[in-house]
Amino acid sequence: MGRDASRTEAFSDAVIAIVLTLMAVELLQLGPEQAREHGVAAALAHEWPAYLAYVITFAIVGQVWLTHHNMWRYVARVDQLLLVFNLLLLLFVAAIPFTASLLAQNLRGTVADQRLTAALYVGAVLGEALFFNLSWWWARRRGLLRADLDPRLARAVSRRFMVGPVLYVVAFSLVFINPVLSLCAYLLLVGVYLVPGPGDVRA
Amino acid sequence: MGRDASRTEAFSDAVIAIVLTLMAVELLQLGPEQAREHGVAAALAHEWPAYLAYVITFAIVGQVWLTHHNMWRYVARVDQLLLVFNLLLLLFVAAIPFTASLLAQNLRGTVADQRLTAALYVGAVLGEALFFNLSWWWARRRGLLRADLDPRLARAVSRRFMVGPVLYVVAFSLVFINPVLSLCAYLLLVGVYLVPGPGDVRA
Amino acid sequence: MGRDASRTEAFSDAVIAIVLTLMAVELLQLGPEQAREHGVAAALAHEWPAYLAYVITFAIVGQVWLTHHNMWRYVARVDQLLLVFNLLLLLFVAAIPFTASLLAQNLRGTVADQRLTAALYVGAVLGEALFFNLSWWWARRRGLLRADLDPRLARAVSRRFMVGPVLYVVAFSLVFINPVLSLCAYLLLVGVYLVPGPGDVRA
Amino acid sequence: MGRDASRTEAFSDAVIAIVLTLMAVELLQLGPEQAREHGVAAALAHEWPAYLAYVITFAIVGQVWLTHHNMWRYVARVDQLLLVFNLLLLLFVAAIPFTASLLAQNLRGTVADQRLTAALYVGAVLGEALFFNLSWWWARRRGLLRADLDPRLARAVSRRFMVGPVLYVVAFSLVFINPVLSLCAYLLLVGVYLVPGPGDVRA
Repeated sequence: MGRDASRTEAFSDAVIAIVLTLMAVELLQLGPEQAREHGVAAALAHEWPAYLAYVITFAIVGQVWLTHHNMWRYVARVDQLLLVFNLLLLLFVAAIPFTASLLAQNLRGTVADQRLTAALYVGAVLGEALFFNLSWWWARRRGLLRADLDPRLARAVSRRFMVGPVLYVVAFSLVFINPVLSLCAYLLLVGVYLVPGPGDVRA
Repeated sequence: MGRDASRTEAFSDAVIAIVLTLMAVELLQLGPEQAREHGVAAALAHEWPAYLAYVITFAIVGQVWLTHHNMWRYVARVDQLLLVFNLLLLLFVAAIPFTASLLAQNLRGTVADQRLTAALYVGAVLGEALFFNLSWWWARRRGLLRADLDPRLARAVSRRFMVGPVLYVVAFSLVFINPVLSLCAYLLLVGVYLVPGPGDVRA
Repeated sequence: MGRDASRTEAFSDAVIAIVLTLMAVELLQLGPEQAREHGVAAALAHEWPAYLAYVITFAIVGQVWLTHHNMWRYVARVDQLLLVFNLLLLLFVAAIPFTASLLAQNLRGTVADQRLTAALYVGAVLGEALFFNLSWWWARRRGLLRADLDPRLARAVSRRFMVGPVLYVVAFSLVFINPVLSLCAYLLLVGVYLVPGPGDVRA
Repeated sequence: MGRDASRTEAFSDAVIAIVLTLMAVELLQLGPEQAREHGVAAALAHEWPAYLAYVITFAIVGQVWLTHHNMWRYVARVDQLLLVFNLLLLLFVAAIPFTASLLAQNLRGTVADQRLTAALYVGAVLGEALFFNLSWWWARRRGLLRADLDPRLARAVSRRFMVGPVLYVVAFSLVFINPVLSLCAYLLLVGVYLVPGPGDVRA
């Protein structure tokens, strides 16, 4: 039955890999037109929000993969509901490039548009975080985790998963001060996750 | 020879993952223009059929993955014709975003266009369901399933696979009353599949 | 070292899966505009070459996957040159949707354009067939195949691989009579491959 | 724990496969318009920089896959930082098609644009090479490599990885003479890598 967990990992990897590169497709499409009208240097300078959004989305989605990788190492078996939670997680992950793109295009828009698009972006990220929490909670409750997993580690991972959404809401709230500040806070948050915590892979 | 079945699973996963995220690419492309003309809030409100279609397609294709996952757990070996049936299944799955997109764009179109696009959409879904049925029937007939599979379970899965297309045709027929009602019926159908049935993974 | 061959399979699967669905992305993009101008039924009728090209490309690329699957079952180890041949195979496979799309758009073009685009299409298919032949020849020569592979089967596969390109050139030459006839001959050729031959998977 | 390394390989494969085919998507989109205006033969002749860029990018990204494949064969375990280095490697790999596309579009642009786009392209390639070096250095330092790996081979791979970036900078500098010459130098460099070196797979 171990094949079940590894097929779910492979499928999630494919979806996350596509989402990670979707922003690069977006870059491909917006480059040419701008360059034709204004020259390459001016076009690239003009498109900085798109590049910032590319890097931030890559960072967020890259971190989603890291978290998925770290969590699923402990999953021994799957059931129907865990697979459904995982699909819903992917639904929100797949919406991140769309909301990130909207956000980037409105960094220089009206204040109302900045806040709306920031809210949509954080909504996609929170949806993803919610289904990470639900997946972990369900897998623990139904005994789908590996038998040799230390219960204290499982609890520590649960706590860590619950902190994430709170920090994202804080980063979002900075949009009321300045939208670029809010984007930078997301980047900082991803940096925080690189400090090894419970459940992370260690050599 | 077990590698054969797992390579087929991995390939199908890649195709399904791309199809699942195709709609997100579509969202990326229709967002910007609309927003520039009408403001973000108005643009998003105006585009609700696209979001509805995104969620429904994600639900349908997500359920295709679940069903594929649940069925292929029992496949021990493959032969040429089973691989061909699986490729034809993927041909119809890959057509779902195209037909879903046509359907969404015509929710506010003429009655004739609503019915035509709804028919194309259900056609793609029925084609996919047909090749699930053929795959299962062929795998049973040729002894490609795992030796330890209970024959009663195999028959129960067969019955379940045959019910799906009937329910899709019922959901489709609602388009003659109201096209949005028909779309909602598809969503409801996916919900029905979450109730664990024979052949679903259980912890 | 068996991981080497399975990683190559997984990578090739990912590339082939993307190529298989590229045509579906193309459909997504050409649908809307046409529909807005002429109504859905007229737009779909007008676009029939695109649908024919979608089905034929899916058939050709699907058969590439089948052939790749059947061939790599016998590969036990890889070396640098086999990987390079496999990458060059993928280079031509990835060009198939582009040439198929050009071909479809010119089915109603000038005779010169029909022949040029048919030649480009068959060029992509022949390039792919060439590197299948080179991969198999090199793997046999360098002893990279499974030790338990019957040498007579290996020779039969070699012969079968060499027949493919000849048949493709015949199908191509029909473009001088009628371009649609030529496309249909490609479809027929794929059908021929479904008749089980040496090296195909058997239950 | 071996599953960790193979999941990282599978995920990287999916990203690299998408990047490899991104250029083919680009071809699909630029073909039709040109053909409609100028006829197919003229359009294809006019688009030669795009085809050159397609082949070169396929060659560079194909070689990235080969190098990744050859390096990760020796990785036995992963830790958080190795995964982060690998994600950053993928960030630069995913930027290659965008910069290659810019480069191709400006082969006939102003001298300033030629140099800027060539610098961006080599920047993406150097970023990728940097994170290959960091991954290998970190894996060696933290004992993440296979225990049976000959230390002399490990040192030889390190030296080889450090030569790559130097050669890329030389190829880049040719842009000050002629941009097409610089592109051809990249192709030549990929050819050099086909000469088997330390760490490459051998039968």
